[in-house]
Amino acid sequence: MKYSRLFGKTIKESPREAGNISTKLLIQGGFIRESVAGRYYFLPLGMRVHDKIMQIIEKEMDAAGAQKMITPTLHPLELWQETNRTSSAGFELMKVKDRRGAEFALGGTAEEMIVDLVRKFNLSYRDLPFTIYQFSQKFRDELRARGGLLRVREFMMKDAYSFHRDEVDFKKEYENMWQTYLRIFKQLGLNALVAESDNGYIGGEYCHEFIVESEVGESRVFATEDGSYVAHEDVAVSCHDIMNPDESIKEMEIKEAPRGPTIQDGVDLYKQPAWRQIKSVLYKTDQGKFVLVALRGDLEINEVKLCHVLGCLSLEGATEDEIRSLGSEPGFISPLKLKIKKVGDFSLKTVRNFYTGADIFQKDALNVNYGRDFTVDKEADIALVKLGQKTKDGKIFVEKLGIEVGNIFQLGKHYSSRMHATFTQEGGKETFYYMGCYGIGVGRTLATIVEKYHDERGIIWPKVIAPFMVHLITLSGKTSEIQANIQANAQVVYEQMQAEQIDILWDDRHEVSAGEKFADADLIGIPLRLVISERTLQDHAIEWKERSQKETHMIPVADLKESLHLFISHL
Amino acid sequence: MKYSRLFGKTIKESPREAGNISTKLLIQGGFIRESVAGRYYFLPLGMRVHDKIMQIIEKEMDAAGAQKMITPTLHPLELWQETNRTSSAGFELMKVKDRRGAEFALGGTAEEMIVDLVRKFNLSYRDLPFTIYQFSQKFRDELRARGGLLRVREFMMKDAYSFHRDEVDFKKEYENMWQTYLRIFKQLGLNALVAESDNGYIGGEYCHEFIVESEVGESRVFATEDGSYVAHEDVAVSCHDIMNPDESIKEMEIKEAPRGPTIQDGVDLYKQPAWRQIKSVLYKTDQGKFVLVALRGDLEINEVKLCHVLGCLSLEGATEDEIRSLGSEPGFISPLKLKIKKVGDFSLKTVRNFYTGADIFQKDALNVNYGRDFTVDKEADIALVKLGQKTKDGKIFVEKLGIEVGNIFQLGKHYSSRMHATFTQEGGKETFYYMGCYGIGVGRTLATIVEKYHDERGIIWPKVIAPFMVHLITLSGKTSEIQANIQANAQVVYEQMQAEQIDILWDDRHEVSAGEKFADADLIGIPLRLVISERTLQDHAIEWKERSQKETHMIPVADLKESLHLFISHL
Repeated sequence: MKYSRLFGKTIKESPREAGNISTKLLIQGGFIRESVAGRYYFLPLGMRVHDKIMQIIEKEMDAAGAQKMITPTLHPLELWQETNRTSSAGFELMKVKDRRGAEFALGGTAEEMIVDLVRKFNLSYRDLPFTIYQFSQKFRDELRARGGLLRVREFMMKDAYSFHRDEVDFKKEYENMWQTYLRIFKQLGLNALVAESDNGYIGGEYCHEFIVESEVGESRVFATEDGSYVAHEDVAVSCHDIMNPDESIKEMEIKEAPRGPTIQDGVDLYKQPAWRQIKSVLYKTDQGKFVLVALRGDLEINEVKLCHVLGCLSLEGATEDEIRSLGSEPGFISPLKLKIKKVGDFSLKTVRNFYTGADIFQKDALNVNYGRDFTVDKEADIALVKLGQKTKDGKIFVEKLGIEVGNIFQLGKHYSSRMHATFTQEGGKETFYYMGCYGIGVGRTLATIVEKYHDERGIIWPKVIAPFMVHLITLSGKTSEIQANIQANAQVVYEQMQAEQIDILWDDRHEVSAGEKFADADLIGIPLRLVISERTLQDHAIEWKERSQKETHMIPVADLKESLHLFISHL
Repeated sequence: MKYSRLFGKTIKESPREAGNISTKLLIQGGFIRESVAGRYYFLPLGMRVHDKIMQIIEKEMDAAGAQKMITPTLHPLELWQETNRTSSAGFELMKVKDRRGAEFALGGTAEEMIVDLVRKFNLSYRDLPFTIYQFSQKFRDELRARGGLLRVREFMMKDAYSFHRDEVDFKKEYENMWQTYLRIFKQLGLNALVAESDNGYIGGEYCHEFIVESEVGESRVFATEDGSYVAHEDVAVSCHDIMNPDESIKEMEIKEAPRGPTIQDGVDLYKQPAWRQIKSVLYKTDQGKFVLVALRGDLEINEVKLCHVLGCLSLEGATEDEIRSLGSEPGFISPLKLKIKKVGDFSLKTVRNFYTGADIFQKDALNVNYGRDFTVDKEADIALVKLGQKTKDGKIFVEKLGIEVGNIFQLGKHYSSRMHATFTQEGGKETFYYMGCYGIGVGRTLATIVEKYHDERGIIWPKVIAPFMVHLITLSGKTSEIQANIQANAQVVYEQMQAEQIDILWDDRHEVSAGEKFADADLIGIPLRLVISERTLQDHAIEWKERSQKETHMIPVADLKESLHLFISHL
């Protein structure tokens, strides 16, 4: 491809919408362009990378025994009603009506469509197991879309679904997909952590996210140094030390407390650590019910865990008016008196003689003990892991931020039972399918690669997904004779590579300076840059520079072919 | 692939929704399955064919210099408002609102999206010309969808868009795409007619459809035997013979006419041919205006031509009440007296002494002559070609029915001017792009191939797009020893072919009879069927049958590899 003919050249101005370096480089390099917030065009350069990533995923999925297919993009809304996901999908579902009034969802994930297809066939145990997958456009009605390609409203997803007779058979495929995903990300140059995760809107009982460490990532995981435990913050479980087991239990007393409303205000007043406080928070669930949540004062509530405990989809903090109308006081809430549902974190059991508010303005209760002075309706793990805490087997947690590039889910019979999708057992009995599902976001994976592979001048594409392997640059010569000679030599190289099916981009522009061409090459990030100029021709050589290396060197024209093959063979 | 593991096996019952043989065979063969009317799943077998068709299109588009990219599926509705297509797109546009209230169109075609992208770049003449294309899901809110894969509400389309400095440059690309399309369809085994067509909702001045002859097609074209003229019925122009040039012009008279309202009623009353009548029809346009349309009584009105003449998008016939309120009478309408806009077909000039109604119940006017007794506001070609008529250069028309599999459009400055998309000329002047667009429907092409390549037992895939090249069948042996021997031999063949990257489907089912396996193989239509059974093993042979041939023959196992390579080399 000649650069002069390429649609989607580099642009100089830094794009206003780029919230991260990958999106900025991809837009400036001519790989993508925003349509409206959260919706992107892939330009020819970006499409080449996108396609190569898809090919790697496809090859590995096929090798793992999965079968490619495709569902329609518009999903009959009745199907989403069968599984009760029209309002609970976790992402806002986009809906559309056709001229006859039929309603459809714009596919966000495709469990319902796949189960509806499978139940159209009368399958038996003989047809099981199978895994089917598709590459299809997915839609998420995100309220904000500021993460460039990392958080979009429309994207290409590889989504796979497996069907099994039972959990034992399913677990083999879960492991198969786990290993397949690791192979895929490794080929793409990504080292993915596999973290236990929250199943969110998908349903099912357990799942794992594939997370690539990155400071721009939105996924926080807690892991042990040795990698034996890796879990998303929403599911990570830590062990709470028993803080003061030898202290004798004292009489509770209510005291004047001339303090402000925060945990720190309590610490300052009593000169006692935060862990001696009870943190009490009043929430209102999405069903309008009030709940009091209590935990040790040095810990934070994880609302995803809390939602699971409460069986709700979302929560919000109670207002000051609501707190007072329930008989308490902002800043002085306690689990002592309120007559509403109470959830207590396990950490309440690790401290003797807590201090806490007394549900009255500037009154505190001292020497409060869980079990004696108050109880809760439900004990649960609702606290975020705190750095320094240990796992159950005594290892120290470290915190990591990363980008979720893939996930695998156990679905069990969540969908098949709600949609009455059965297969015939050996004995003739109709049984619900046992299912799993498995996703990879293609665009997000692409952006993650750029987050990992770039420097201050631009992208550094891994060879395996580079849009082109060679970036040939010709510089202008002083005379038209030299110019013609450069052109002719470049033409030979260009045609030779095409004949050998080596993807080559030739920056053949005349009106552009050498500096600009080099800057564009660095920005675009093709693995190998070759320069032909008056100087190189004098030496019967070509200038060779790998994007990932600092040095340039000259190689004789006669050696080009061999060097190139060596370069390419190290994919 | 082992057939036992394939998702989407053959089904016995004939699908209720299949309106044509291709859809019936594709559903029964396990290639596709309906979701709801007009929306189809492609199952793994169908996906393989669909992908191969896309690969052929992609290869040829790339070879023709086009660059692949992709636009978002949701198009900001403002863009469609800029070109005034929100209500005039010809297909009902599906619209969707996001949670912030922003409106989008579900892409039907992508001219606006592409022009919006191109105008984001400040391009100059140096960047021109270029052609960009995508494969993307397209949506059409069809009122009825009864044609199986031939007329759907959602489908994969290859759509390309070219940008040029002027018409001269555009015409080179139009010819390039024309030839590229012919190459694509030829490789797919389709012989496409290229017919001048109506530009419909796309805009622009001229276009061509690629039509494959088929009795289930919805496109009617008129062509000369030698192929020198091929045109869609909506644009085909014929020459009208002068019918009675030697007759002397007579005095007009009004007479009692005891006849019914049809043309035939007039023919019966006067014992005169239909061409001596004037056919007058009263229409109401989509802007609510009445128009009288007159033409020779033996011809039919083509409403697409008429819409173009009137500059409207749709028309309907006036009701009997409306006809009377305008001062005429159903069955006796004439162009003589009504004071509304009149359009006359050129054929009015070919007859002397017409007879026609006289706008009064059972009164006719005789010896009516165009020019003397009435005139029209606009003379135009609004008649459908009639068989037996000739082209302008005297050749006879034949009529053909076919399926439109592709189209190419001149767009000129239709979109670029409405959307103010300009490039910088050499002198610095900003100039609107000159554009073209080019489409192929992938699913419809697939179905068309099945319409052409099948027999009463099933599909006969051309090798180049067959889902698999070889369909291996093993039959059960009488003893478990023989059975094991058959299995072992088949395994060797299966692995050999996989090693040689020959796509093979092995019907390894035990519970199914030989007859059923043969019937399934015929239905699925893989080019080569190989059978291993007790009998073939006795002869150290394999049974060889090509799907397109009647005979089976035995080939020695030792010769299999060579025969296969020969078979495959004749793609």
